Amino acid sequence: MKRKVCVVVTARPSYSRVKTALLAIQEHPDLELQLVLAASALLDRYGSAVNIIVKDGLPITAKVFNVLEGENLTAAAKTTGIGILELSTVFENIKPDIVLTVGDRFETLATAIAASYMNIPLGHIQGGEVTGNIDEKVRHAVTKLADFHFVASENARERVIKLGESEETVFNTGCPSIDLAKQVLEEKEINYLELYKKYGGVGKELDLSNDYIVVMQHPVTTEYTESKDQINITLEAIKELNIPTLWFWPNVDAGSDGTSKGIRTFREKNPDVPIHFFKNMEPLDFLRLLKYSKGLIGNSSVGIRECAYLGVPVTNIGSRQNRRDRGINVIDVSYNKDEIKNAIKTHIANGHYSNDTVYGGGDAGKRIANKISELKLKYHKTITY
Amino acid sequence: MKRKVCVVVTARPSYSRVKTALLAIQEHPDLELQLVLAASALLDRYGSAVNIIVKDGLPITAKVFNVLEGENLTAAAKTTGIGILELSTVFENIKPDIVLTVGDRFETLATAIAASYMNIPLGHIQGGEVTGNIDEKVRHAVTKLADFHFVASENARERVIKLGESEETVFNTGCPSIDLAKQVLEEKEINYLELYKKYGGVGKELDLSNDYIVVMQHPVTTEYTESKDQINITLEAIKELNIPTLWFWPNVDAGSDGTSKGIRTFREKNPDVPIHFFKNMEPLDFLRLLKYSKGLIGNSSVGIRECAYLGVPVTNIGSRQNRRDRGINVIDVSYNKDEIKNAIKTHIANGHYSNDTVYGGGDAGKRIANKISELKLKYHKTITY
Amino acid sequence: MKRKVCVVVTARPSYSRVKTALLAIQEHPDLELQLVLAASALLDRYGSAVNIIVKDGLPITAKVFNVLEGENLTAAAKTTGIGILELSTVFENIKPDIVLTVGDRFETLATAIAASYMNIPLGHIQGGEVTGNIDEKVRHAVTKLADFHFVASENARERVIKLGESEETVFNTGCPSIDLAKQVLEEKEINYLELYKKYGGVGKELDLSNDYIVVMQHPVTTEYTESKDQINITLEAIKELNIPTLWFWPNVDAGSDGTSKGIRTFREKNPDVPIHFFKNMEPLDFLRLLKYSKGLIGNSSVGIRECAYLGVPVTNIGSRQNRRDRGINVIDVSYNKDEIKNAIKTHIANGHYSNDTVYGGGDAGKRIANKISELKLKYHKTITY
Amino acid sequence: MKRKVCVVVTARPSYSRVKTALLAIQEHPDLELQLVLAASALLDRYGSAVNIIVKDGLPITAKVFNVLEGENLTAAAKTTGIGILELSTVFENIKPDIVLTVGDRFETLATAIAASYMNIPLGHIQGGEVTGNIDEKVRHAVTKLADFHFVASENARERVIKLGESEETVFNTGCPSIDLAKQVLEEKEINYLELYKKYGGVGKELDLSNDYIVVMQHPVTTEYTESKDQINITLEAIKELNIPTLWFWPNVDAGSDGTSKGIRTFREKNPDVPIHFFKNMEPLDFLRLLKYSKGLIGNSSVGIRECAYLGVPVTNIGSRQNRRDRGINVIDVSYNKDEIKNAIKTHIANGHYSNDTVYGGGDAGKRIANKISELKLKYHKTITY
Repeated sequence: MKRKVCVVVTARPSYSRVKTALLAIQEHPDLELQLVLAASALLDRYGSAVNIIVKDGLPITAKVFNVLEGENLTAAAKTTGIGILELSTVFENIKPDIVLTVGDRFETLATAIAASYMNIPLGHIQGGEVTGNIDEKVRHAVTKLADFHFVASENARERVIKLGESEETVFNTGCPSIDLAKQVLEEKEINYLELYKKYGGVGKELDLSNDYIVVMQHPVTTEYTESKDQINITLEAIKELNIPTLWFWPNVDAGSDGTSKGIRTFREKNPDVPIHFFKNMEPLDFLRLLKYSKGLIGNSSVGIRECAYLGVPVTNIGSRQNRRDRGINVIDVSYNKDEIKNAIKTHIANGHYSNDTVYGGGDAGKRIANKISELKLKYHKTITY
Repeated sequence: MKRKVCVVVTARPSYSRVKTALLAIQEHPDLELQLVLAASALLDRYGSAVNIIVKDGLPITAKVFNVLEGENLTAAAKTTGIGILELSTVFENIKPDIVLTVGDRFETLATAIAASYMNIPLGHIQGGEVTGNIDEKVRHAVTKLADFHFVASENARERVIKLGESEETVFNTGCPSIDLAKQVLEEKEINYLELYKKYGGVGKELDLSNDYIVVMQHPVTTEYTESKDQINITLEAIKELNIPTLWFWPNVDAGSDGTSKGIRTFREKNPDVPIHFFKNMEPLDFLRLLKYSKGLIGNSSVGIRECAYLGVPVTNIGSRQNRRDRGINVIDVSYNKDEIKNAIKTHIANGHYSNDTVYGGGDAGKRIANKISELKLKYHKTITY
Repeated sequence: MKRKVCVVVTARPSYSRVKTALLAIQEHPDLELQLVLAASALLDRYGSAVNIIVKDGLPITAKVFNVLEGENLTAAAKTTGIGILELSTVFENIKPDIVLTVGDRFETLATAIAASYMNIPLGHIQGGEVTGNIDEKVRHAVTKLADFHFVASENARERVIKLGESEETVFNTGCPSIDLAKQVLEEKEINYLELYKKYGGVGKELDLSNDYIVVMQHPVTTEYTESKDQINITLEAIKELNIPTLWFWPNVDAGSDGTSKGIRTFREKNPDVPIHFFKNMEPLDFLRLLKYSKGLIGNSSVGIRECAYLGVPVTNIGSRQNRRDRGINVIDVSYNKDEIKNAIKTHIANGHYSNDTVYGGGDAGKRIANKISELKLKYHKTITY
Repeated sequence: MKRKVCVVVTARPSYSRVKTALLAIQEHPDLELQLVLAASALLDRYGSAVNIIVKDGLPITAKVFNVLEGENLTAAAKTTGIGILELSTVFENIKPDIVLTVGDRFETLATAIAASYMNIPLGHIQGGEVTGNIDEKVRHAVTKLADFHFVASENARERVIKLGESEETVFNTGCPSIDLAKQVLEEKEINYLELYKKYGGVGKELDLSNDYIVVMQHPVTTEYTESKDQINITLEAIKELNIPTLWFWPNVDAGSDGTSKGIRTFREKNPDVPIHFFKNMEPLDFLRLLKYSKGLIGNSSVGIRECAYLGVPVTNIGSRQNRRDRGINVIDVSYNKDEIKNAIKTHIANGHYSNDTVYGGGDAGKRIANKISELKLKYHKTITY
């Protein structure tokens, strides 16, 4: 009998971080994949991960709509509460042998609570990292609920063990997102111009045949009211640089409406600035566009992870990725127009960086699947000290 | 302006563990108490903590009904999900400056998530302890969500710091439950015979003027199906000892129905065994009865905590209190009739033990209130390593 | 492609009212049954309809735990809210062509709202009846949400049409519960003494070889605080009559704890009164015991429906069945000990009554299934006036 | 002691329909207003009724966030479920003597269920009307749960009575929205040009000193997928007419994203068409702009109600207001560009119409408040036939 592995994916970026693990689980002879989609992964205005997943050929076992709408942080709490209610029913009906939750988004605690309270062994992908905002509370709380830990770096492994987890339950597999970066880095030729056209988007039509940059900036949850100001600083910096820019909308979070409003207002007033806006893009295509770009600007973790492996220059703004391990490709700046502009210029002058494997060597998906197939499953644990 | 301190109490035993802290907060000139009652604290069949609280003169700010009924663990998960939904609305409307959650019951995660996701500073009372069952997952997860930690012992303080919390946010105040034990120990004369009569209860009428013992045994969540067998072993041991016994019903948990059924069936078949059953008792009266008893049997944490201070002999059954700090008053036994009987006999022969302050010196409530009034409130944190 | 018919069963008594419809749907060549169990149908202390259903060979598509525990009416509201949340996810995932909801219990509105809001055609079984309590609000509200109406009597059909429903959507199929009554009435010989033993129960052992009676009395929701007084009147009446009595526990409702407490207290004090208590019984066996009894006492709708067909004498207490159509087998009494006693005595003197088909001729299940297979499905409607 | 009247407002348009009733309740010496805001009334992207209400000086007793985000009808069901969960806690804590729910939006059933299940007398404002879509199911279901009915027209009164409600519980008070229309009609001079500027909005700057028209078109819930096509037809008609147009965004509903997307796409492609877009406007200002306009186009009920009293010409598109009572000021058209254009032209040629009191004479708010103060409250009812 195959071991039933339920993975709950709650957002577009989480999906690209586990895609190769999902494929490896699906292909593994001893494992059966139960893919549950929830939260913003199902919503159009956050890029409908569901459509990408269907296209990637992964079967969906259940869908859970649980995003509560609101302009304040209360909505994040309620979304988590509804997630627990719904996921526990799903688990009750599909009876997984192990549940996997991914990363540090607030909804991941819903998966973790439902599984651990129901005595279903819980695995956590990407524990042990640090950033310094609310996400960190979530991530380490999930670690304390999880029975098995599939971490992405050596530092993360050590940190999870320091948190009182048994060494034999912590596995440094590398990050599955690097598997995609490896694939893209090894591709011979990509017609990135066609990619750009394929996705439509809105805003100024761009000429990408020369230099272009990419922006992805999320609201920072605990600095809610400032999201609009923060996005405006980046918008102004890009405006003054006047380089063709591909701009990606942020994912769902308290504060995303502040960010969205900032972007919309900017567009109304600056129709001629060379920025083209996208709501979503298949992960591989996003990496392909990054590969040929002069750099990524914003606070996306893609800049810290995949770009380390790809060697793409990253201008990392603000506190969101504060304490994460990073490669030499990253320049950290604060919310300051000139700092942002200078960092981008430095990067463009420097060009791409060498490949850095701090987040794994590109085989994380398979290592996770193999490890799961061999685990002695359990849902009991006690702290090591 | 007074600092608004919201404490969420979800069960009768949690209440007696924080009662003196609640009173100290209420009396503190710089603090305003916002007492929220939820979960089994409101339910008749779990002892209606609400009635005791009203009698104790504490004002109730809001009530939240969130216990989902069910015979499986799914209900515990759902209860937590509903708790988050409801508590976030309560917090939204009463706008506390700090929220306190107590102990390690599964519902405490609902309080912790609602507060931390809403950027309300979160304090945790009784973190850092270990037991070795599901409760431990919950407790340490709450620690990772909490901003301030009011722990009950030096070991607990060290453990919370090892978990990556900043030293200056961890305070060993002792356990407020010891404050009650101190009060009872210092009382001159108690007519415990009247106490026994005052509460009614059901079962055999007892003569308490000579030796009597007290039993309180909860189902162990992660050993769900065995609860009935486990309670039967204790029932048989008590039956054979044939000593007057005051038996207290367990609190709400997955599995409590197995325990209840065991007790009900035993009563039908053994109407003449000298056991009298109680559903609930005011915490002080419970301690008074313990003070004059020959010992406590079961797996209640009262045996580990208050009884250490009181010097009452404890026969601690099974894994529920596995790794907790304990005094010399405890004999640990497994689910084995003879072991249980022998431990009780040894204790009776030995008599009471000397006072042990491992869980504090009896002033925890005031220390917590004072500390809260002085705290520099914050809801940001990052792991220390 | 078979038409997918989703039936949501939320309680033991609802199940026996639709059992033959479920079987007929399952056996129909053009229909596929999707049976969803929710609310008290899954709970041990309300008779675990789920066990009976599994034994009857019906496959269960999904289970939904949604009963919120509480001693007040708030819990009924919340149970309904959770039901909507959960059932909408179930419907989203199993995509029924039509949903059926049954009767007038408060949770049926959850099914009705989830289906109608999701544009799934909704059928209602047992609309158009009257009783005069909260159940009536629910029933007619469900009628206004439903697209198709499978009613149990001619009066009910006329009432649904008066409520503004199109004649061609209202079908008097009779009540499926009568199908079971017909089957039992036609059975040759039943060893009802074995039946009685088969179910165990608690209380005095009875001799059923001569006269015996059956009691089933539910709390009346809108008279919450009086449930305990009301049940005591019946208990005293039965005690004075001193006839062997089979007593069935009521189903889940606000107030059932008042009723339960009344029964428990009575049992403690009157261990020798010839009453034997049952928590649940398979519907057919219940009818068999009724068939050989001297009458049913209480306020169960079984007295009004199945007993009309069976000709079993019914002493109907209080307002719960106030305005329902009834046969000549019913004597209505108020909550008055002497009235209850006199009615029972009159019935015993009179013996059984002739068969009355006011609620159908015993083929309702098949008529419902056939009708569903032929319906032109729709989810639009407008009032006829 | 004042009678506590809790009104639950869930959307901007509902607020303007009850504003005068809220004010009258607040001012009534025997009544205390408990205003609860929920659902889209709290959300920025649906016009934040909350801000208007605060500005109008009404105190808010509680806020309930319950809108579940989603692109399908499931979200409407879930929003209702969450609403019940939350509102029952609110009612439990504020203990109203009577609850009022307004109109026919899907969330109103949440209010109705929470109140009626908790045995709180329920009043319904605007029952008895007909339209022919999903809203009608909701409206009549609320009628069957409500104990008192404050209807807006004589036809509505008769329909509620036909639905089996007792005559003495049905009051034709007229519609409170007409109270506002009366006030605006009686105003001497309004500088509507300033009004237009005051609200900002986006799109082409307009000259309103000559003819202008107003558009408000909501998605039609049960024709979900067609919303985008439908809005495009209206957009094209307006484009061809080339008259200055004030366009108001629709309120939250399944399908509103289709409508929104239609409008956004049109704007991108037609920056020069003389349309100015608004997200929200205070109700009185909206009526003032209507008063001086050449007509309202779309499917808003304002066209049917307030415009009847104001005599403003209305081009009513599609089925949304299908069977509502209407004055001579309405021309009904289908989703057809030429029909829409012709109707608008006919109206412009004709000018304003005479005042029609089909929906009341402008004193509904006071009549409702007075009636509530005199009611003999009850929560029992039975159908009249």
